[in-house]
Amino acid sequence: MSDCIFCKIMAGEIPSKKVFENEHVMAFLDISQVTKGHTLVVPKQHVKDIYELTPEIASNLFEVVPSIASAIKETYEPVGLNLLNNNGEKAGQSVFHYHMHLIPRYGKGDGFGAVWKTNFDGYSNEELTEIAKKIEEKVR
Amino acid sequence: MSDCIFCKIMAGEIPSKKVFENEHVMAFLDISQVTKGHTLVVPKQHVKDIYELTPEIASNLFEVVPSIASAIKETYEPVGLNLLNNNGEKAGQSVFHYHMHLIPRYGKGDGFGAVWKTNFDGYSNEELTEIAKKIEEKVR
Repeated sequence: MSDCIFCKIMAGEIPSKKVFENEHVMAFLDISQVTKGHTLVVPKQHVKDIYELTPEIASNLFEVVPSIASAIKETYEPVGLNLLNNNGEKAGQSVFHYHMHLIPRYGKGDGFGAVWKTNFDGYSNEELTEIAKKIEEKVR
Repeated sequence: MSDCIFCKIMAGEIPSKKVFENEHVMAFLDISQVTKGHTLVVPKQHVKDIYELTPEIASNLFEVVPSIASAIKETYEPVGLNLLNNNGEKAGQSVFHYHMHLIPRYGKGDGFGAVWKTNFDGYSNEELTEIAKKIEEKVR
């Protein structure tokens, strides 16, 4: 798409710090570097979000993520690594071309963390069965 | 693995709220339900984390994620959806069988969020080039 910053990066019209490239995918540093080595893995085809990914784009994308994650691990020896993908502005998406964040972790206060409120007692067994059934019926 | 809770779920030895299953993958509700519809997508083969995923396991896993995400969207009409995968205890991993969280979002205070400190001025252009080069050299 002509006004998409990631399409421009992949066309070489905007510079980036490239980490990996093949026929389907490009990976480059996130310039915000939430932690050192913070990398984005991006499909070359312009798709907005997880809902627009075809099974083929999805499999081609994720196929290369383990090797990029392993390269980050080998380079910086982080204590952990998070993958994050935000879909929708209210979920933190700011560039509307699908991308997966690879965020190496170096301990508390390193720049990234999750707000995570568990809700173990929020639903009865019957309610959980109902939630799963509703979703299952809609998987195509 | 005999002591792995996800392997036991997939073997039917522990009950779960199943959302999807094929030859390679099973998806079921996370019992913590951080938000309503919170689902895990899990490879049937026991692999610990992103570093242990083969390209084949990775592509088979992620191939089905868009359709499960779309089913969640259609069911609960969330305002967004996050994918999260934690690798290493210090990155929030608590079950050591690879799993991807699908977390539908319903607005602020819904149970999930990201701590996200950007670091745009943290590195010079030369330093970013060096970081990317080091990682790129290690991708196999």
